[in-house]
Amino acid sequence: VNRAVEVGSMDGLDGVTIGRLAGDLEMSKAGVIGQFGSKEALQLAALDRASEEFVATVVASTAEMPHGLERLLAICDNWVDHVSRPTWPGGCFFTAISVEFDSGRGPVHDEVVARARQWRSVLKREVRAAVEAGDLSPDTDVDQVVFEIQAIPMGLNQSIQLFGDRRAAARARRAIRRILGLAAPS
Amino acid sequence: VNRAVEVGSMDGLDGVTIGRLAGDLEMSKAGVIGQFGSKEALQLAALDRASEEFVATVVASTAEMPHGLERLLAICDNWVDHVSRPTWPGGCFFTAISVEFDSGRGPVHDEVVARARQWRSVLKREVRAAVEAGDLSPDTDVDQVVFEIQAIPMGLNQSIQLFGDRRAAARARRAIRRILGLAAPS
Repeated sequence: VNRAVEVGSMDGLDGVTIGRLAGDLEMSKAGVIGQFGSKEALQLAALDRASEEFVATVVASTAEMPHGLERLLAICDNWVDHVSRPTWPGGCFFTAISVEFDSGRGPVHDEVVARARQWRSVLKREVRAAVEAGDLSPDTDVDQVVFEIQAIPMGLNQSIQLFGDRRAAARARRAIRRILGLAAPS
Repeated sequence: VNRAVEVGSMDGLDGVTIGRLAGDLEMSKAGVIGQFGSKEALQLAALDRASEEFVATVVASTAEMPHGLERLLAICDNWVDHVSRPTWPGGCFFTAISVEFDSGRGPVHDEVVARARQWRSVLKREVRAAVEAGDLSPDTDVDQVVFEIQAIPMGLNQSIQLFGDRRAAARARRAIRRILGLAAPS
């Protein structure tokens, strides 16, 4: 499954096929089919593994923090770190596959949409909690803030993967604080 | 070539192959090869066509305007419109292929990077001109502003393609004005 996620980050999930994986892992096709059943099941397993890894590096360390601004910033900073030092060779797995599956149909597409929606609702909960706690202005347009925040790691991924821009992570952190109306990080 | 760009917007340029195009266009493979020579030449031709179309819809109408804020906003608004009403069925062609080719090598990858760099330099020129004209604060961090602006259409593309969010274009316009320190558009 890890190899499937690696291939997915580089060539998209469409590159994740039984034959390719069998070749990469020096397994027989029958062996790969025996474990996953179909290309689609293999793609869904790769999606699951990448999600687990994303939650472990971006969200897990914040689980004990109260909902609100501090937790939101910790999640965003972890997210920036995660995109800056990607676990997978092709950069951010979710950026790669959310673009790949945006115009598709079928269970893999639906799962990508469901997970992207879930992730926005996590961000939204923290922004709303920060407003309720008085850490962000009561006038905050929560959906606008979430829209702007989610764009930043995509831009970061592009700056890193296309240009190798090493200052991009600091720019992303600064951008997120500006979106939230906070001072730049030290 | 148009069909190649359509396929590229949906399935990435890797889906743009001689065989696929021949099938879609009911041409012989030999006929497609005769016109383009190789898969790579076909991909580069698709990139050229998409670039022409991008320039025609996003930049051309601003060519007579003086460099600076007004021109920058016109370019950005055209860009938001372009991503909101994509010419190609798979959404923004450049978002699709810049993610696809970010971890690759070879002439198509190099061409994608060169064009992305060129586009950033267009944005940078306008932001700098706006600062010089006094329309933006002299403290403006030009690279930071360009970094933030280029992320917004990527987030917009995701909101539209994954969620069908019809308010996303207005959010993108508002985000760009906030990045520039301007009031929201009416």
